[in-house]
Amino acid sequence: MEMMRANVFCGVDDIQVREVPKPVAGIGEAVIRITLTTICGTDLHIVRGEYPVRLGLVIGHEPVGIIDQLGPGVLGYAVGDRVLVGAITPCGQCRACLSGQLSQCGHGSESGYEALGGWRFGNTINGAQAEYLLVPNAQANLAKIPGGVTDEQVVLLADIASTGFSGAESACVKVGDTVVVFAQGPIGLCATAGARLMGASLVIGVDSDNNRLSMSKNMGADITLNFQEQDVVAEIKKITGGGADIAIEALGTQETFENCLRSLRPGGTLSSLGVYSGKLQVPYDAFGAGIGDYKIVTTLCPGGKERMRRLMETVKNGRVDLTPLITHTYSLDNIVEAYHLFGERRDNVVKVAIKP
Amino acid sequence: MEMMRANVFCGVDDIQVREVPKPVAGIGEAVIRITLTTICGTDLHIVRGEYPVRLGLVIGHEPVGIIDQLGPGVLGYAVGDRVLVGAITPCGQCRACLSGQLSQCGHGSESGYEALGGWRFGNTINGAQAEYLLVPNAQANLAKIPGGVTDEQVVLLADIASTGFSGAESACVKVGDTVVVFAQGPIGLCATAGARLMGASLVIGVDSDNNRLSMSKNMGADITLNFQEQDVVAEIKKITGGGADIAIEALGTQETFENCLRSLRPGGTLSSLGVYSGKLQVPYDAFGAGIGDYKIVTTLCPGGKERMRRLMETVKNGRVDLTPLITHTYSLDNIVEAYHLFGERRDNVVKVAIKP
Amino acid sequence: MEMMRANVFCGVDDIQVREVPKPVAGIGEAVIRITLTTICGTDLHIVRGEYPVRLGLVIGHEPVGIIDQLGPGVLGYAVGDRVLVGAITPCGQCRACLSGQLSQCGHGSESGYEALGGWRFGNTINGAQAEYLLVPNAQANLAKIPGGVTDEQVVLLADIASTGFSGAESACVKVGDTVVVFAQGPIGLCATAGARLMGASLVIGVDSDNNRLSMSKNMGADITLNFQEQDVVAEIKKITGGGADIAIEALGTQETFENCLRSLRPGGTLSSLGVYSGKLQVPYDAFGAGIGDYKIVTTLCPGGKERMRRLMETVKNGRVDLTPLITHTYSLDNIVEAYHLFGERRDNVVKVAIKP
Amino acid sequence: MEMMRANVFCGVDDIQVREVPKPVAGIGEAVIRITLTTICGTDLHIVRGEYPVRLGLVIGHEPVGIIDQLGPGVLGYAVGDRVLVGAITPCGQCRACLSGQLSQCGHGSESGYEALGGWRFGNTINGAQAEYLLVPNAQANLAKIPGGVTDEQVVLLADIASTGFSGAESACVKVGDTVVVFAQGPIGLCATAGARLMGASLVIGVDSDNNRLSMSKNMGADITLNFQEQDVVAEIKKITGGGADIAIEALGTQETFENCLRSLRPGGTLSSLGVYSGKLQVPYDAFGAGIGDYKIVTTLCPGGKERMRRLMETVKNGRVDLTPLITHTYSLDNIVEAYHLFGERRDNVVKVAIKP
Repeated sequence: MEMMRANVFCGVDDIQVREVPKPVAGIGEAVIRITLTTICGTDLHIVRGEYPVRLGLVIGHEPVGIIDQLGPGVLGYAVGDRVLVGAITPCGQCRACLSGQLSQCGHGSESGYEALGGWRFGNTINGAQAEYLLVPNAQANLAKIPGGVTDEQVVLLADIASTGFSGAESACVKVGDTVVVFAQGPIGLCATAGARLMGASLVIGVDSDNNRLSMSKNMGADITLNFQEQDVVAEIKKITGGGADIAIEALGTQETFENCLRSLRPGGTLSSLGVYSGKLQVPYDAFGAGIGDYKIVTTLCPGGKERMRRLMETVKNGRVDLTPLITHTYSLDNIVEAYHLFGERRDNVVKVAIKP
Repeated sequence: MEMMRANVFCGVDDIQVREVPKPVAGIGEAVIRITLTTICGTDLHIVRGEYPVRLGLVIGHEPVGIIDQLGPGVLGYAVGDRVLVGAITPCGQCRACLSGQLSQCGHGSESGYEALGGWRFGNTINGAQAEYLLVPNAQANLAKIPGGVTDEQVVLLADIASTGFSGAESACVKVGDTVVVFAQGPIGLCATAGARLMGASLVIGVDSDNNRLSMSKNMGADITLNFQEQDVVAEIKKITGGGADIAIEALGTQETFENCLRSLRPGGTLSSLGVYSGKLQVPYDAFGAGIGDYKIVTTLCPGGKERMRRLMETVKNGRVDLTPLITHTYSLDNIVEAYHLFGERRDNVVKVAIKP
Repeated sequence: MEMMRANVFCGVDDIQVREVPKPVAGIGEAVIRITLTTICGTDLHIVRGEYPVRLGLVIGHEPVGIIDQLGPGVLGYAVGDRVLVGAITPCGQCRACLSGQLSQCGHGSESGYEALGGWRFGNTINGAQAEYLLVPNAQANLAKIPGGVTDEQVVLLADIASTGFSGAESACVKVGDTVVVFAQGPIGLCATAGARLMGASLVIGVDSDNNRLSMSKNMGADITLNFQEQDVVAEIKKITGGGADIAIEALGTQETFENCLRSLRPGGTLSSLGVYSGKLQVPYDAFGAGIGDYKIVTTLCPGGKERMRRLMETVKNGRVDLTPLITHTYSLDNIVEAYHLFGERRDNVVKVAIKP
Repeated sequence: MEMMRANVFCGVDDIQVREVPKPVAGIGEAVIRITLTTICGTDLHIVRGEYPVRLGLVIGHEPVGIIDQLGPGVLGYAVGDRVLVGAITPCGQCRACLSGQLSQCGHGSESGYEALGGWRFGNTINGAQAEYLLVPNAQANLAKIPGGVTDEQVVLLADIASTGFSGAESACVKVGDTVVVFAQGPIGLCATAGARLMGASLVIGVDSDNNRLSMSKNMGADITLNFQEQDVVAEIKKITGGGADIAIEALGTQETFENCLRSLRPGGTLSSLGVYSGKLQVPYDAFGAGIGDYKIVTTLCPGGKERMRRLMETVKNGRVDLTPLITHTYSLDNIVEAYHLFGERRDNVVKVAIKP
């Protein structure tokens, strides 16, 4: 059995780069040799034991690589092709997928839907922080990288850009809308870029970290607000003349969720991207008592090869440049150190790239 | 000054039929002589002091009548025309209205949006439980009643049917969807009818009142469930093979809201019609921790003459018959007695009609 | 090599029931034993040489059957399962499918889109008028038939009902819309049912065959018009007070297309289902010179197992009964005779079922 | 009676600046003093007799000005306010407007819809090439100009930018779409900007005038193609790998319409903005014989004050700069000369501004 090196979850606060068996592509599967991947905030939750996964799992879900093996039934690809694979790997053939809800892919389940079922890498199957990665449903998930585009340009499309943009897309941003984005971490910065990309006439970025607020302007915010320095809800209402059309939540806390709702005009849309824990409260007054025509939409990172293709086109044609978000790069062997830096948010880190 | 009789809010638990000045139509306004109106659950909230309105206000917001006066600038109508007017009377000319959000009409406001601003009758201006009613923005709100259609057939379109149907419409019911409706009061019954009307392949009505569950079947439910007799969430999951596509909340309580969410498949839509008081909690587990692709949409009764025209067409052509919901009829002079019956839910009352 | 009997295209106006090799399921494929199928208008075009297919092809694309073989990689099914397969068999994994445009499935093509690419049965691969049928992309296309539902109830869902309903769906019929359907053949009758199912308040069926107009009423039309007996466009404008919201074209001729457009109110939607030959003209005057806010939408039969599941639910719960459309039944061995009856529209034939 | 100077249609090829009565604001109306207006391609059609209007009509429909009079019933404005008014002036209160189809406004008509009914200025009532302009339905149409924004920045929003952007909006451009725009006149240039603004990942501008192709790049095209120098359809198919997602027609000829259709991938959308004359042909082969899932959408310039407000926000925040399109400026008294320049497309003219 061939072996490879991979970042393995060995217990709470215990990840280790180990030798594990190199995967072999079965029917409809592929194996790619990882050339670039990253660490995601979700990985931190896993390492800290806040999101449970099985012991021994290889974590990570943002893979760029080169096709190493193609299983039977995968057509139109060749070993050696450079590919991006989304964090979410829909099967394309279940009830959820055929309904266009790829992230809740029910591959194999009786009902055809599985909550978060499209998220498999580093969750229910081995992930991308490794030398090699088994890609399930490869036909639906291998997205060829256009010539002239670097790994660094596309690696963040796998998760945070797809997620961040979807915050704007699920809210159906229209030309002329005002959009406020609460939290300017990696996903919030991409939501800011997404709102701008879709034609929002005013984008407001909110955070408490001035470095991130500065990046927010670079990603497309017209105005940034530091919530530690002012009453941001009042300021947003003033700037927008009554409330934003859309508020995007990009953190996953009661406070940001509630501030989003309070920042909206009547009939506005709250687009939520954060992962919440415990009970979430909807403040009655900011919700028009239920009859304010408010919408709350939530979105898990859209995946699949067509999503990746579209996002790579936006990068290739210069619509958005995500490379400034990659503030640090580590080798796979030093990934534990990278987790520390990222987890402690040292050195103005935004995203850490990992090179196996 | 001409006088008329009207049901006046004189304080908490104190309504009285009194002589008040008959209204006069100003620019863009009309006065109609009420021929039929009803009592709404919202009126009970007002009388009980749970929803504050000014002392002296005439309450009620479901008017059918005959045009008595037309103010300057109202074109295409004649005194004597029979009309239905929606509970919500959008101006058609503010930012909210021109954006298609008629219920949050901002007539006169600086921002062009006003929370619940389209609801004026019996809220911010005199209402319909009277001999005569002043209709603001008459051009946008007087809907002529087609020949051969009775007052009884259309009066419930003004509010509860428009609201109930909108529960299905805002959820974008598609052909083949499964829809569960929590609570089978007047609005829930109309939501049931609306889901059926839009092509849901399975409609499940939930309540604890067997009389209402029986009406639910008449309005279009395929299956009814009594939540006092079984674990309805478990039953819905079983019947639907994993959860409903859409759940409509038609009561306004934490319990029904939460049960709606728990009844959904991943990626489902909760369409909320109820009026909530106090904090509303979103159970983290039933919400996919925020990344289950759930949508929560809320809707205030759609109004305006075009909405009323469309609904009257559905009634005229036999798509739905709302008259069985009118279980009792009282004269305006006996309206206080009618409020008691309705408030105490005596005698299997569903809706009470009032004839001035 | 095992053999089976099948209806083979042997040249223009020459179909023959012959012995051909029984298919064998490869990776991702299945073979079903056909228990019921039908003849479609498109098959007539093929036989007449109006739509070219290769010599030796087994024709037919409306299969109901029992799983006989399951190829490697097809999960969640068992030999013996009763299944319905749509006429369109999307792969679920190409660019078109992952974009929700299943009918233009680009399985295998470089661009990921192929015009009409989802239609393979009896077009680019062997079809359903046979004892056995090879189903490609079986995971995405085998729809289990619910217990208690007969073959006759579901066979027409594979094509004509899916197509007919989609005429209403693509037009986004809303509650209260008026819809006119030009031509009441099998697809037009299903479009009529679809418009009714989605909440149209008035459905008008147009044809010249009084038998079909009578069926039109049974399928949901409120009013039927015989275009040989009156000026239907003028009549529709009169009935609707200025034009229908939506007109569905279900034949594929210049005349019906043009009449659809002329029957619309300004800003209305023409939903076209017909297959046209030669140039199609858009009359300038009926099109608002291009600035009348008209929409023209076209739809190829939606397929895939989720589509079939949804349609079977509508049938199972009594929303629509398609069995009256099956006016005749023949054995596979007598299929040539059935083609003659169907092609000559003898004996008030609507659809002919074929039992292998 | 007060008089004013205005550009009057006196017959085919005969416009004259004359003294005509200054308008007086009635109920719901306003009069504005024009500070800037322009000449539109449609005005050329009128002058040439290709689009009939009554003799004596003041033409022009792109007004920026200052409120001079406010009729009874118009609230929230003051004499002296700077306003932009859209070319289309919906009433907000008819069936079409309340259905969101403002351009087909049926103010006063029995059916509530009137083809092109929202276009009144310089068509059915006096227009903007004058010292003063009567604005009907002023409450729905007076859009206050934000401070710091010049007349030149907003005047093109009244028609060509609203129209051009709507070409992208009606086609529902999504992030990552490829969009081709046929013809790069004023409207095509704005459609190019609109496609870019909505997140198209690739925008291709097509024309035969190299000056306009150069402007096309400035307005957002990634690639421009000169149809006199190459087979643009073939080139578009090559660049896009099979066809564009969306093609916008911005001229109104058979050739551009047909090329749009031929440039699309299966299932693509043709968004048509041009005004056609005579019969328009849909080529059967490029239309998938009617079953290629193509959509053809047409749009008349969206108007109303909310549309203008949104567009002014996009200009104010630097999303788009339209001032380069104003290549020439004339006084009202010299407007006949301006028509000659514009009509003959001399001196690389794109748009001509008129200052009364």
